[in-house]
Amino acid sequence: MSEHTIIPARTGKAVRVKAGERLKIINLHGTQVADTWALSIDDPSEYLSMEQTRRMNFKLSPKGGDMLFSNRRNEMVLLEEDSGPAHHDTLIAACDKWVYLKAGRDEDHPSCQGNFRNALAEIGMEAPALVPNPLNLWMNIPVNPEGVLSMEPPVSREGDYIVFAPVMDVVMVFSACPADTTDINGKDRIIRDVAYKLLA
Amino acid sequence: MSEHTIIPARTGKAVRVKAGERLKIINLHGTQVADTWALSIDDPSEYLSMEQTRRMNFKLSPKGGDMLFSNRRNEMVLLEEDSGPAHHDTLIAACDKWVYLKAGRDEDHPSCQGNFRNALAEIGMEAPALVPNPLNLWMNIPVNPEGVLSMEPPVSREGDYIVFAPVMDVVMVFSACPADTTDINGKDRIIRDVAYKLLA
Repeated sequence: MSEHTIIPARTGKAVRVKAGERLKIINLHGTQVADTWALSIDDPSEYLSMEQTRRMNFKLSPKGGDMLFSNRRNEMVLLEEDSGPAHHDTLIAACDKWVYLKAGRDEDHPSCQGNFRNALAEIGMEAPALVPNPLNLWMNIPVNPEGVLSMEPPVSREGDYIVFAPVMDVVMVFSACPADTTDINGKDRIIRDVAYKLLA
Repeated sequence: MSEHTIIPARTGKAVRVKAGERLKIINLHGTQVADTWALSIDDPSEYLSMEQTRRMNFKLSPKGGDMLFSNRRNEMVLLEEDSGPAHHDTLIAACDKWVYLKAGRDEDHPSCQGNFRNALAEIGMEAPALVPNPLNLWMNIPVNPEGVLSMEPPVSREGDYIVFAPVMDVVMVFSACPADTTDINGKDRIIRDVAYKLLA
């Protein structure tokens, strides 16, 4: 695993990826949700938009081979390859301190929105005041034909991975989601590491 | 109709509504989509969140009687009454200048995001840099059992209305959606007025 960079459980990481490079993110244990964002390096006010991606692809959830679009309807990141059977959620907000306060946890419980800000700060970038909605990799939110959602443990498997191929220079941000208040990261509610690798 | 305030076609309006008051918005002609937002008056960084509302109600689309939640998971606005059969979209971004540029229109084509900013400016409030996702009243985005979206003309009817009952003091913002590039505001693609009324 020395070739991979670990994103420790409950934390985030920001990675610059140029157009033409590819990034592989790996669900080392199979049950870990990873909230995912991308911002343009040239102009970070252009970001990966779930709202525009749903509109452009006419799908609730992107699949392997689908393009992901920015808030300016530009092609931004190709979801080039998806090893697994899981859907990826685009419907639910990234967790933040209020989610955990409402669940009776401390204000300093780690959160995906906090991880997003911290990860960008680590590479010298300021996060937007309003955090864009993430692509929640491996997060299992089935939608029934009546439009009723449920929240289930991941169906992804150990070693499942996704390859992203940005079509513009971006910063990608990942958060190994710290949600231990539901079964969203597995029935044992143990938060685990994920990993990424930049491909040539 | 003198008791109603018209929101002219292609424009927006911001209205302060106190907890305990109710606001009725009326689809005068039946085919007009109205993008809808709410911000807390005490702290406008607290806003109506489609991402949290979907999570709290476990529904893609709110119905009459449903509570709508803020980005801090607080109860914000009750969707008290809905006269019609239409679903209301929570999935698609508010249109902005890039949507119209991509459709070959001018940069100054009116847009819901522009209307949101202008309406707040008219009452002396500054819009957040990143516009929250709206509740798109009467916008007809069917979702099939495979999670495939489509974009259809409204099924709402002349005079259909919705009553909102905020549970905190809010500014509600409405935009009579200027999208004339699809059938989303009716097959004739004519953008029309909507109206609102504050109820005692």
